Amino acid sequence: MESDHYNDQAIIGGCSVPVRVNRKSKAEPTTVNVNGILIGSSDVVIFAGPCAVESHEQLLETAKTVKSGGGMILRGGAFKPRSSPYNFQGLGDEGVKMLRDISREIGIPFVTEVMDTRKVEFVAEYADMLQVGSRNMHNYPLLKEVGLTRKPVLLKRGMMATIEEFLLSAEYILSQGNDQVVLCERGIRTFETSTRNTLDLSAIPMLKHLSHLPVIVDPSHGTGLRWMVPPMAKAAIAAGADGLIMEVHYKPDEALCDGHQSLSPDEFTQLMYDLKKIAQAVGREILMPQHAVV
Amino acid sequence: MESDHYNDQAIIGGCSVPVRVNRKSKAEPTTVNVNGILIGSSDVVIFAGPCAVESHEQLLETAKTVKSGGGMILRGGAFKPRSSPYNFQGLGDEGVKMLRDISREIGIPFVTEVMDTRKVEFVAEYADMLQVGSRNMHNYPLLKEVGLTRKPVLLKRGMMATIEEFLLSAEYILSQGNDQVVLCERGIRTFETSTRNTLDLSAIPMLKHLSHLPVIVDPSHGTGLRWMVPPMAKAAIAAGADGLIMEVHYKPDEALCDGHQSLSPDEFTQLMYDLKKIAQAVGREILMPQHAVV
Amino acid sequence: MESDHYNDQAIIGGCSVPVRVNRKSKAEPTTVNVNGILIGSSDVVIFAGPCAVESHEQLLETAKTVKSGGGMILRGGAFKPRSSPYNFQGLGDEGVKMLRDISREIGIPFVTEVMDTRKVEFVAEYADMLQVGSRNMHNYPLLKEVGLTRKPVLLKRGMMATIEEFLLSAEYILSQGNDQVVLCERGIRTFETSTRNTLDLSAIPMLKHLSHLPVIVDPSHGTGLRWMVPPMAKAAIAAGADGLIMEVHYKPDEALCDGHQSLSPDEFTQLMYDLKKIAQAVGREILMPQHAVV
Amino acid sequence: MESDHYNDQAIIGGCSVPVRVNRKSKAEPTTVNVNGILIGSSDVVIFAGPCAVESHEQLLETAKTVKSGGGMILRGGAFKPRSSPYNFQGLGDEGVKMLRDISREIGIPFVTEVMDTRKVEFVAEYADMLQVGSRNMHNYPLLKEVGLTRKPVLLKRGMMATIEEFLLSAEYILSQGNDQVVLCERGIRTFETSTRNTLDLSAIPMLKHLSHLPVIVDPSHGTGLRWMVPPMAKAAIAAGADGLIMEVHYKPDEALCDGHQSLSPDEFTQLMYDLKKIAQAVGREILMPQHAVV
Repeated sequence: MESDHYNDQAIIGGCSVPVRVNRKSKAEPTTVNVNGILIGSSDVVIFAGPCAVESHEQLLETAKTVKSGGGMILRGGAFKPRSSPYNFQGLGDEGVKMLRDISREIGIPFVTEVMDTRKVEFVAEYADMLQVGSRNMHNYPLLKEVGLTRKPVLLKRGMMATIEEFLLSAEYILSQGNDQVVLCERGIRTFETSTRNTLDLSAIPMLKHLSHLPVIVDPSHGTGLRWMVPPMAKAAIAAGADGLIMEVHYKPDEALCDGHQSLSPDEFTQLMYDLKKIAQAVGREILMPQHAVV
Repeated sequence: MESDHYNDQAIIGGCSVPVRVNRKSKAEPTTVNVNGILIGSSDVVIFAGPCAVESHEQLLETAKTVKSGGGMILRGGAFKPRSSPYNFQGLGDEGVKMLRDISREIGIPFVTEVMDTRKVEFVAEYADMLQVGSRNMHNYPLLKEVGLTRKPVLLKRGMMATIEEFLLSAEYILSQGNDQVVLCERGIRTFETSTRNTLDLSAIPMLKHLSHLPVIVDPSHGTGLRWMVPPMAKAAIAAGADGLIMEVHYKPDEALCDGHQSLSPDEFTQLMYDLKKIAQAVGREILMPQHAVV
Repeated sequence: MESDHYNDQAIIGGCSVPVRVNRKSKAEPTTVNVNGILIGSSDVVIFAGPCAVESHEQLLETAKTVKSGGGMILRGGAFKPRSSPYNFQGLGDEGVKMLRDISREIGIPFVTEVMDTRKVEFVAEYADMLQVGSRNMHNYPLLKEVGLTRKPVLLKRGMMATIEEFLLSAEYILSQGNDQVVLCERGIRTFETSTRNTLDLSAIPMLKHLSHLPVIVDPSHGTGLRWMVPPMAKAAIAAGADGLIMEVHYKPDEALCDGHQSLSPDEFTQLMYDLKKIAQAVGREILMPQHAVV
Repeated sequence: MESDHYNDQAIIGGCSVPVRVNRKSKAEPTTVNVNGILIGSSDVVIFAGPCAVESHEQLLETAKTVKSGGGMILRGGAFKPRSSPYNFQGLGDEGVKMLRDISREIGIPFVTEVMDTRKVEFVAEYADMLQVGSRNMHNYPLLKEVGLTRKPVLLKRGMMATIEEFLLSAEYILSQGNDQVVLCERGIRTFETSTRNTLDLSAIPMLKHLSHLPVIVDPSHGTGLRWMVPPMAKAAIAAGADGLIMEVHYKPDEALCDGHQSLSPDEFTQLMYDLKKIAQAVGREILMPQHAVV
């Protein structure tokens, strides 16, 4: 499929895995440190928050829900990659600053997406973790630019990317000196139309087999259906995921984007309770803030 | 995609689900009875056995392993759908009879595939459950023929079939008067090549949302990789599967087909032990024979 | 993807091509003879007719249109593989006999689909050519059964079959002693939903590169849209197809199936006129009946 | 699949097409003017050149071949999006300047890819047309940035983008005031592995049905195989393409990238000769430079 050949790689189970991300180059799993929270350890880490930052109230209320429900890292988009130019494009710089303010107020670090090389420096100044979204997994200048920062990076799999290409994109970041990369499976595009994407949970064991980087799963985008998030979240942890990233909104029915796939506060809290049992069944714990209600 | 329209259906979550399989037509889940073993109850049922019946010794030894490891139903192919006409095509009638003999000797019911309408009567006479394989999910004369028997049917999803088409194929069976149908997700074909297929675990909650029929998962064909069977088996149960069907061989390295995706006896026993914990974490139990060692 | 290995094959351009269908085993292209009409020669052969046989009037009028418009072989379904059991399933035996009668009355041979091994003998007695449809490309007992007849076979590519699997299915037929096989590309299943399938015209040069068998294209099923049939029909001939199979109906808006992708008589005649020019631009002719109006 | 809704659109044949690109908003086809060469008129325009600019000699010799063979616009990459960070990444700024110098020396305009928003101003200063590549079709900041220039844009379809998403990406460019956009089909990703991508020629009539923008095809990336470029190039023109973009290299076997899919000078000249006949068969001409040898 891909005509390129590269020199520095390991062949693992028939796959070519580039030099820095492959498991042969580094026996121990990498742990990624987001303001003291470790991803890739024996504990499972939950990221949660709204699709987009919409307003101070929305973000504040949702962030409180996330923290009290047991989420460790807040997610929220300020720069939104929308298929149509006429859809809400996010609050931009103002949204990033709002995330920073509320994150500090509540005491929960946050990850937010950066799409434009010109914005990497700005976002890296405010955010605790940079997200490279699915649509930009093949955006190599952006990968290099986040690789030059010293911020942890959440790299989402392209909806059309093979496992091999996904690891090559991670390698772009590591090749610039930044090894703090978390891989995120978020659903691939197939012929099936009953779900928004097809969540490829086999990517979890495969990525962990090939690479030392931590792997998390996004069941919200992976399914596009609120009621399908709980079973797929459980399945992801059972399959060995190091964490989950989920959309939660304090009022899903009023969300400016992705409301149909966002959990309500109650649904989130209930799910966290159920996830604890699954984590224990595979010998792990869900990492929780001190005062979580779950 | 599909141009047909049919009269008798329910629309559930945007999908057209035909009349007999849809959940609106029957509120209670269907339980399928295979010689007294119920599939679709609160207990999870494990099917296991070799890809193909190869010899009396191979089948007997593997069947013992299956039963002692906690498997409730033996699987094994006598008529094998092989991509190449020059590959081992299975033992045919003799294989079916061998399955029957060993099944009775060990005390474990069995399921085996039927591919040809002319063989349905014969296989139904010997087997406890008829399998319609992935390659024949669109073989409508075969679906009608197994629908005319009074044997339970294991219907595997076509590797290219949408959820809607899968349920329409089940409807073919029910429309002939046989409602004893178990649906099996076994991986779909995508662009990804690191696994044999892409196991679509979101099919589990989707099928159970749309239909009252039980749903099981085949992680062996779904991944094509022995070491990936355990994490995906756990994930399937966490996502709500009513059972699993897995390839087990007493000597995987000597198997005539699919040895690379077959579990050894020890791997199977260890996995069963782990699956018990996952089942309990979702409020279920793995149904086990009385003298299982797990 | 496929774990099987077979002994007798040639490797051509990275593909494994089994022994009887591969081009290395037979330098000359195979020509398939349907009642004296040769497919695979320098002339391009057009198959046309309705999706399904509906009535004597419908078939007779459409057959006349096909012949006067320049079609050489009539197509029409008597056994229809429908996704839903509640859709029109075809006229069955009666439809086959009607095809035979009208074929002889008009003086045009016909091809019709067979889906059930039990019906192969009957259909082979009446039809000039047997079709194995897309949904049955992996139905190996059926492939063997048509391989045992001495009738030419039109084998359609499975909607999610690789080129390698397609040739292996053809090999099943040849392995039984019948080398009169025409391969038909009819669209594959992809993520794209604006067309019914994605017509893979690169299959034409690829199949002719790997195999000596003739290759035709079905732009009606390949697109599912009447207005898209003409450009794709032209493209297929430009890419080297040995023929086309198209749906034509004397009254498309009243068709019991696939009316939206069927050409009207006038559209068919106009298209045939345009196809002549394309064929000549690639150094070929469209084979035409003596009294065609085009 | 996509959860967004946008206000300003037309529904054409079941597809939602945004306001500026849709055919209902503008009855006449758009012609795109690249230094006086019109794309989207009755004449077919050929773009050709190397995958990557490698050296002055390589580019000069290939550019001469392109022009003498009948190509109207030179293509060549200076910024190369490579899956691996360890592959040749292109000559960068120097490559863009070399393209400009040789373009002016030979008298042929050129198109080159831009991947980084920070480079759009620079590339727009030198190039006659800007290319947004397949991997960046969903890179919305880049689309907006090229939309703010007054240079024509060649927008390639993402390898897993639907037709609807492709048109939405074009709309991003038009929404910034730049309507000089040429759409390019370059193959989509499917399960088929015998070709690099699956060239979706049905995209040509579909895009022209939905939009007023011109459509060209890239058979080099679409197939990944040199010998398959000629039949697919012919097919593209037969299906109604307004042009082609093809990889030509003066010494394909020594190319630093994509040599296996690049035509030699002789192959290119022969193909151009054959394409003239196809164009005439559909009532068009290939636009040629005054002193072309074809």
